[in-house]
Amino acid sequence: MFAPVYFDYNATTPVLDCVREAMLPYFSQRYGNASSRHEYGRAARLGVDTARQQVAAALGAHPTEIVFTSGGSEANNLFVRGAAACMKPGVIVVSAVEHPCVREPARELARQGWSLHEIAVDGAGRVKADDFAAALDKRPQLVSVMLANNETGVVQDIAALALRAQSSRCWFHSDAVQALGKLPLDFRRLNGDGVHALTVSSHKIGGPKGAAALVLDKRVELKPLIAGGGHERGLRSGTENVPAIVGFGVACEWAASRLADDARRLRGLRAALERGLAAQGATIFGAEAERLPNTVYFALSGVDGDTLVAQIDRAGYAVASGAACSSAKPEPSHVLTAMDVAPELARGAVRVSLGADSTEDRVNGFLHALAETQRRLRGLAALAA
Amino acid sequence: MFAPVYFDYNATTPVLDCVREAMLPYFSQRYGNASSRHEYGRAARLGVDTARQQVAAALGAHPTEIVFTSGGSEANNLFVRGAAACMKPGVIVVSAVEHPCVREPARELARQGWSLHEIAVDGAGRVKADDFAAALDKRPQLVSVMLANNETGVVQDIAALALRAQSSRCWFHSDAVQALGKLPLDFRRLNGDGVHALTVSSHKIGGPKGAAALVLDKRVELKPLIAGGGHERGLRSGTENVPAIVGFGVACEWAASRLADDARRLRGLRAALERGLAAQGATIFGAEAERLPNTVYFALSGVDGDTLVAQIDRAGYAVASGAACSSAKPEPSHVLTAMDVAPELARGAVRVSLGADSTEDRVNGFLHALAETQRRLRGLAALAA
Repeated sequence: MFAPVYFDYNATTPVLDCVREAMLPYFSQRYGNASSRHEYGRAARLGVDTARQQVAAALGAHPTEIVFTSGGSEANNLFVRGAAACMKPGVIVVSAVEHPCVREPARELARQGWSLHEIAVDGAGRVKADDFAAALDKRPQLVSVMLANNETGVVQDIAALALRAQSSRCWFHSDAVQALGKLPLDFRRLNGDGVHALTVSSHKIGGPKGAAALVLDKRVELKPLIAGGGHERGLRSGTENVPAIVGFGVACEWAASRLADDARRLRGLRAALERGLAAQGATIFGAEAERLPNTVYFALSGVDGDTLVAQIDRAGYAVASGAACSSAKPEPSHVLTAMDVAPELARGAVRVSLGADSTEDRVNGFLHALAETQRRLRGLAALAA
Repeated sequence: MFAPVYFDYNATTPVLDCVREAMLPYFSQRYGNASSRHEYGRAARLGVDTARQQVAAALGAHPTEIVFTSGGSEANNLFVRGAAACMKPGVIVVSAVEHPCVREPARELARQGWSLHEIAVDGAGRVKADDFAAALDKRPQLVSVMLANNETGVVQDIAALALRAQSSRCWFHSDAVQALGKLPLDFRRLNGDGVHALTVSSHKIGGPKGAAALVLDKRVELKPLIAGGGHERGLRSGTENVPAIVGFGVACEWAASRLADDARRLRGLRAALERGLAAQGATIFGAEAERLPNTVYFALSGVDGDTLVAQIDRAGYAVASGAACSSAKPEPSHVLTAMDVAPELARGAVRVSLGADSTEDRVNGFLHALAETQRRLRGLAALAA
């Protein structure tokens, strides 16, 4: 039976039992279309409304500020393309370590007459203050800087960046997909500092795939990516994915209630993991920066990341090489390239992301398997040399 | 307990037991990100691959022609906007009875320099041959005509229209969301006649909400609505909604196996329903046209559709007024307006759409409740007069 240890929580998470139970009635009993004006429709609408309140409460937002989408990639595209579509082409600024679902729409705008500034990061993956200042000097209309990086876990000081951006009168967006459930998020406070939109996603916090939200300051004008029946205040048409939205709501409530305890526990596990990795000679990326409590991104010099992940998988541990959300790409991670990591070392990158079922025993088991694997791979390399 | 008779299958359907059972393991066991290169990722990818084969098989398409999206609205927008984004502005042609998720992106193109021709329909809701010919004379680059209408159930002869459009070298798309599971669909044959893309959706055929597909001739160049990690051959980025896609696959297999029997049974029920409605003085819209076997769209002169739906709901029958997929809009249906139905009668429109759990008893119960309701409403109207 298939049950390796799962250390890839940044890629996706198992659906929590309480979430699955909350969703189930919406498949074959309360299965109505939330727009229908009969008992089944009202039951579905009630499920969506309740979830909207739960998501808003977990984020310190108002329910009317929540725009449900099918996923984080859609929400990020909705912000970048949707806001740009309401403006004359100007300047867009994104960090050099954004997820492809922010980078690619920004680059598409650059092909359509926008000027794109990708803000440089330092060796620890933090946005460089001087390059951010240079970007603001260009008077951008749109700025997007992620709250926490999916690969390194490095956290940006979004509030400080947004405060500095206020004078340029841009819309400031942050991809908070990896932050939700791992760091406290307060949209009301961030909004006060000048953050106008946040992206969050269900399947990173024990909710189902298929639901996410753009949390949106209502002053921001957006054109929808998906036009039609006028759902979600006209910003996202299409029959609501009621079970997924219901599950997202419950997952948000659960995550908010567990956040402080989980963060403390995971930080402890991560420290043990990093001590073990250091003893094996690993380089840990972004170690000097503030990072998500659950994420370790490392490389063993001279060991290929993909090979290591495949070997470790056979030993019963599911970890990631490079960014897990994107499709097969052989180049080194753009995040590590932006951090000026040498390509040889970057190709060794392996991400361990801990979560609810991670324990000290499992971390120790992983370290043991890694040592064995490293020994074997280095032995093979010596034989081949 | 909440269990009115459900007669709103065109709005959405209950998830089939076999579909729900197939999905369940993908929530909390095989929960991996399908892009991850470990055991959990491979299990998820296998689920998506299997579903892609099931969907393709049910549609007579090749698995590589299936582009999964989060819903029918997304797939329709992807075709209209995605194809247009690869072209210089020209002429787009859509029928006057398209769903808003085709009409609205087409109208958006019209605001961006495209010329939009909305093809007129006759009193039965069929595309008018002479107006279609006039549209083709404008040398359109894009044509979209739905296979079956969500309100009336009226079926267009897509193969004949596509054959006639071939000389104009346009891309021909058809929204087949309401046709799937109710009519035989063969993309290979339609493609031979000049249909280049079809939209189909899971939740209309006993599958879950959150999965749909654009079936796409690979010669058609599209820009993605959602750019990012490069999923779905770069046409639709974002973590695959694995459980929903798995469920969609099983639902397609089930629908294909039941199609002929279901259609015969539903056609029989519909005939009984229409005899009863005629006896109560109802006008049946599109009755002279070929229609989906499960759909009856009618009005009782002088009785408001919304009021009737609300009353019938209290009597224990879930039916729709106007189009159920769109949000609250008080104007009469654009479909009936295009069919030149008088606004007073159009405002009375009520849709009954039958499905798996519809029986003769339930149809008779509905007719009885309708007669009672009509009597009461007319009595109130007489008192008020």
